[in-house]
Amino acid sequence: MHSDTDSLLITNPTNIRYLTGFVGVEQRDAYLMLLPTKAFLLVSPLYQEEAKIVQFNNSFLKKQFPKIKTLDINILTPDNRITKQLTNICANEKIQTLSFESENITVSEYEGFKSVVPTLSPTQNVIEKLRVGKFPNEITSIKKAAKLTDDCFTFIQTKIQKGVTETDLSWEIETFFRKNGAENAFSPIVAFGKNSSQPHYMTPASARGPLAEKSIVLLDFGARVNGYCADMTRMIFVGKPKPEWIKAYNTVLLSQQTAIDNLSSSVSGAEIDRSCRKIIEDAGLPTYPHSLGHGVGLEIHEAPRLTIHNDVTLTKDMVITVEPATYIPNEFGIRIEDLVHIKDNEIAVLSTSTKEVIILL
Amino acid sequence: MHSDTDSLLITNPTNIRYLTGFVGVEQRDAYLMLLPTKAFLLVSPLYQEEAKIVQFNNSFLKKQFPKIKTLDINILTPDNRITKQLTNICANEKIQTLSFESENITVSEYEGFKSVVPTLSPTQNVIEKLRVGKFPNEITSIKKAAKLTDDCFTFIQTKIQKGVTETDLSWEIETFFRKNGAENAFSPIVAFGKNSSQPHYMTPASARGPLAEKSIVLLDFGARVNGYCADMTRMIFVGKPKPEWIKAYNTVLLSQQTAIDNLSSSVSGAEIDRSCRKIIEDAGLPTYPHSLGHGVGLEIHEAPRLTIHNDVTLTKDMVITVEPATYIPNEFGIRIEDLVHIKDNEIAVLSTSTKEVIILL
Repeated sequence: MHSDTDSLLITNPTNIRYLTGFVGVEQRDAYLMLLPTKAFLLVSPLYQEEAKIVQFNNSFLKKQFPKIKTLDINILTPDNRITKQLTNICANEKIQTLSFESENITVSEYEGFKSVVPTLSPTQNVIEKLRVGKFPNEITSIKKAAKLTDDCFTFIQTKIQKGVTETDLSWEIETFFRKNGAENAFSPIVAFGKNSSQPHYMTPASARGPLAEKSIVLLDFGARVNGYCADMTRMIFVGKPKPEWIKAYNTVLLSQQTAIDNLSSSVSGAEIDRSCRKIIEDAGLPTYPHSLGHGVGLEIHEAPRLTIHNDVTLTKDMVITVEPATYIPNEFGIRIEDLVHIKDNEIAVLSTSTKEVIILL
Repeated sequence: MHSDTDSLLITNPTNIRYLTGFVGVEQRDAYLMLLPTKAFLLVSPLYQEEAKIVQFNNSFLKKQFPKIKTLDINILTPDNRITKQLTNICANEKIQTLSFESENITVSEYEGFKSVVPTLSPTQNVIEKLRVGKFPNEITSIKKAAKLTDDCFTFIQTKIQKGVTETDLSWEIETFFRKNGAENAFSPIVAFGKNSSQPHYMTPASARGPLAEKSIVLLDFGARVNGYCADMTRMIFVGKPKPEWIKAYNTVLLSQQTAIDNLSSSVSGAEIDRSCRKIIEDAGLPTYPHSLGHGVGLEIHEAPRLTIHNDVTLTKDMVITVEPATYIPNEFGIRIEDLVHIKDNEIAVLSTSTKEVIILL
């Protein structure tokens, strides 16, 4: 348990999934309450059958909190809502202080809970910090997702043809993952030409203009296997590329390769980000308005962030992206992104798709 | 403006989309600050190009807050974060009290904001309440989504064949909407046999057992057009249905039809829910562990809820679902759901797919 707590109410659905395997649809489909030696999963009546398959013995809850010996499942009902159940558990278990996830509980919920619990105590990222170092079976799922993402990149190149739209390619990616028994880690970003200058470009659900004869294709996509995400970005040039496109590509690639060459456990994320930005700025290009990379796991964006604005030291079994970029507004953008597993004194690059310049004519 | 506020910070992404048209990907891609005569959209640098297309003159912000005359767009940067921008705006505009959405701001964010603003004041559902009554162009989008959902139901019946899996049908539905230029309002629920007894059954991304020769198919799905959702549930019997399936179906249908016959503006949602439950209970079947229905708009579940636990009076231009059900654990479930537009003294049922018993042999 978190050192200054004797009990913790977990509301973040991803944290609940991580610890118990329970997957709901909406924010408050379940609550997880950890006490020193026992835990309670409080579940919406819509999920009473699903909750039965939660297996405490195989759970990360048991691994991460070895003093906890049991997980009881209670059903939330209109007559026995969360506030009433919290009241009863706190009374029965003689809980004086209930810690909560202050980055997840809303002010409105806090007002409701504070009248039923003796003392509420905020915590930050207790479970998110546990999620940062991946267990071997998490790495296995992420590797499967990364492999499928590589396979999809091979496949999608066969679909980049005259007349194709962003929407078409986005759909081909989504279909590829689904036909292979996986999910999509996020809606694929497929950006043609100047749309590539928008870092989080949203490919529309209905078709937008076909690919020009001379253009840039940015593809940012990833599979999701057993809930675990992959994330990769690759660029493809269609027709003879402009010299400034290739110059930008090679600069971003140098920046990305420098990061990968310098990554290992114990290095500073801020230092790596700073050196990557310097390579891009030294080439006279605008640096990226986002972090160099982010953790990946059950969420596509999770701790840590690799950024000059908030340093972290890399540690064993983090899985992170490395994605420097440059964006020229209204002209074009270049981003190259790999998924990386930090090991002891080395790393494994999980994305194996080529980063050689690809030109389709 | 909300009567007791002179300024309101809007953080709920759907509320920001509703008022401005701005669509981001993550929770805090944008903030919207409303002052008595002006507004500010504060946007992540990842979206500075997208933010340029926000059109104040065509926005619901202008319609809902006619005293507001301008919408300025500011970019959030690491050197000019949300707390700093709030500090500056509050100082420049002499704001004493900043209201906020207490159902969206976390305790952690509240702690950060309270040091930069003279007084923070919680509000509940200010914008959600405005969203309850739909404008004509919102109704138009919802009608298009409902029509496409009906078309999909016709289509999907041709795909219910020997050997088909839940995953196959789910994918056919998703594909149908995307091929027709729409999105999916939510991941379709396709539940065969006893899986139909789970109200929010999650159809797996990888195939699960094929359709039995004698089975029940529950389909709960909807298209999304211009961001606006549709929502419909239909049942299909495969092979000769058991008498108890047909009895349950007819009971739920009677319950649903009774609701539709009694709906109009000014009726009580709780009364309607109570009468629907009574019909199911009187037939000796378990009543549903959810509300009779919910509002539908930019979100698949939004205000109001039609439930015995929290009454609301229906009003003109609400769009709601009507979805009584019965669930027999480990055996089967029956749910029938239509989308309904509440008009002055009448209603329009937007779902037009048949509710006659469908038996595929």
